[in-house]
Amino acid sequence: MFDAIVSADTLQDALDSVSVLVEECKLHLDEDGLQVRAVDPANVGMVDLTLDAAAFESYEADGELIGVNLSRLEDIAGMAAADQLIHLELDEETRKLEISIDGLEYTLALIDPDSIRQEPDMPDLDLPARITLEGRDVDRSVTASDMVSDHIALGVDDAADLFYVDAEGDTDDVHFELHSDDLIDLEAGDAHSLFSLDYLKDMNKAIPADAEVEMELGEEFPVKMHFDIADGQGAVTFMLAPRVQSN
Amino acid sequence: MFDAIVSADTLQDALDSVSVLVEECKLHLDEDGLQVRAVDPANVGMVDLTLDAAAFESYEADGELIGVNLSRLEDIAGMAAADQLIHLELDEETRKLEISIDGLEYTLALIDPDSIRQEPDMPDLDLPARITLEGRDVDRSVTASDMVSDHIALGVDDAADLFYVDAEGDTDDVHFELHSDDLIDLEAGDAHSLFSLDYLKDMNKAIPADAEVEMELGEEFPVKMHFDIADGQGAVTFMLAPRVQSN
Amino acid sequence: MFDAIVSADTLQDALDSVSVLVEECKLHLDEDGLQVRAVDPANVGMVDLTLDAAAFESYEADGELIGVNLSRLEDIAGMAAADQLIHLELDEETRKLEISIDGLEYTLALIDPDSIRQEPDMPDLDLPARITLEGRDVDRSVTASDMVSDHIALGVDDAADLFYVDAEGDTDDVHFELHSDDLIDLEAGDAHSLFSLDYLKDMNKAIPADAEVEMELGEEFPVKMHFDIADGQGAVTFMLAPRVQSN
Repeated sequence: MFDAIVSADTLQDALDSVSVLVEECKLHLDEDGLQVRAVDPANVGMVDLTLDAAAFESYEADGELIGVNLSRLEDIAGMAAADQLIHLELDEETRKLEISIDGLEYTLALIDPDSIRQEPDMPDLDLPARITLEGRDVDRSVTASDMVSDHIALGVDDAADLFYVDAEGDTDDVHFELHSDDLIDLEAGDAHSLFSLDYLKDMNKAIPADAEVEMELGEEFPVKMHFDIADGQGAVTFMLAPRVQSN
Repeated sequence: MFDAIVSADTLQDALDSVSVLVEECKLHLDEDGLQVRAVDPANVGMVDLTLDAAAFESYEADGELIGVNLSRLEDIAGMAAADQLIHLELDEETRKLEISIDGLEYTLALIDPDSIRQEPDMPDLDLPARITLEGRDVDRSVTASDMVSDHIALGVDDAADLFYVDAEGDTDDVHFELHSDDLIDLEAGDAHSLFSLDYLKDMNKAIPADAEVEMELGEEFPVKMHFDIADGQGAVTFMLAPRVQSN
Repeated sequence: MFDAIVSADTLQDALDSVSVLVEECKLHLDEDGLQVRAVDPANVGMVDLTLDAAAFESYEADGELIGVNLSRLEDIAGMAAADQLIHLELDEETRKLEISIDGLEYTLALIDPDSIRQEPDMPDLDLPARITLEGRDVDRSVTASDMVSDHIALGVDDAADLFYVDAEGDTDDVHFELHSDDLIDLEAGDAHSLFSLDYLKDMNKAIPADAEVEMELGEEFPVKMHFDIADGQGAVTFMLAPRVQSN
């Protein structure tokens, strides 16, 4: 059985992190919480989401696996006020999800999990640089770079003890440096990789401005970005593959 | 003569209730207030609006009948701040409406009342169920149903002493129950009718969230919705014809 | 050299006044401040902007002349919070403008000033009427007139000691009178001229609601509108050519 109660804002924050990459996903409903892993159709961006049982007001599950349409589920959650509770219950017979918000009941048809793209393995990379920064600095980097280019370089200058962002456009450029003093933390190591801004913009939408984002970078390697949601009772990891260096 | 002064928000609330159904209407300017009755082009939705002379700061009329373009009149009223006063005066000679807002004068050409669709008779139905609920619950019903379907069933279960809303979509369903405890008042009697959501969505736009809406329902009969505006010095009644039961 | 620091809202207010008329302009960076003069492609509307060195937190210039894309520069300024400082520095070698906002550096390619439309001479007209009014009254005049027409007459009735606005549409009219009591100041003299609303609407966007606007009017002559920005340390003058009287 799956029967859980969760606040609307917790559910929305969790769903947002996945819906920026995919339309449909599989929800693993295990005893200790909800878990999602998904990769976008082009195999460029991945997300790993966990939402602990403790993030729910009440939670019961036995390892169910269900497939959902995320925008549909987000629209339903969007009808609730941020602090309102949402009750989710799987009807084993009909294989539909019963969603109640203060008396209002929504019956959501599920998607056959076998028809949803296979879940990716999040590779275990040993990346040389680890930068911890505020979500708002990720946002500034992405927003400014988007004004001049469609790609963005993220790097760490080990010698200068700083994290930098570079975007080179046809006429204008953006450069952003954050020294270790401006960062929450920096474990320096030379790193430089180029990424598609389209993906980073999508991921950025799901990163709260006040989140502590732990970023891992290498030399022409994927970037990983990790942050907590639900007061630390949930976690999101994004991974984005690098672009071939443009010249 | 017609010469009246009214606050912008009172005028706007009154006009909104009519403009959701029709573009043009006839205003009856009687000694005791303003009155409008209108039906949409498809003869499915009706509105009856009265705004008592007491709802105006000052009011004088002798039974004039004028035709107005509602969106034009709403645009003019929209230039005023909510608590600003709007002065309306009929120029008998030019047959135009002089509208002043703090020194600004707008001369509105009127429409020949004979060119406007005939006013409907609001039928006097003796409907078995009467539900009194908050405007925000009408809004929740309509908004949620709109996510899954283009029609909505409204009903009362006499035995269970509850009002319900049902919307059945191709894959998902919405069900909403309000027991007599959740309602302001319920005079139960079996009732169940199906309605077009397009019309209910339009009517819903004119219902304030904190209004007390008195709804009358029957078995495959029209629904009537009545609520006050202008601190009880005005009243709106909507009537919506039922749809043939879908199956 | 050009090296200046200015608050984001001061820079934005200044740029707004020019960008409502043209896409690109020449910035004169003189010792005592920044100056722009521009005319729209149809030679109907002109703007003269000065921003004194005192409006900047720091300012150094030696008579540089640079060409800029205004919407690009406004987008960059828009990334800063209103009270954030923007650092502008001309790189003499690359002929690019280096713009920094709290660590973020934007390198803006400049436009060859010779490729930008020539700057107009703002004619020195001796206009008979001078009206000083609040920006919000300019806004009301323009917004109301726009509801009925695409042109607007501005005038002063010397005998009646009032300023008036007239807009005549195909069916509806707008008339707005401000007596000398309603104005900040009125130096009366008969005046009446007709203007294109498209231009006035654009200029109106750059006029703050609480600005004191000094308007100069004549008989079928251009209108001049003058107002201060940056707490009086900057000034904008708009001039708009009259339309031929419609009939």
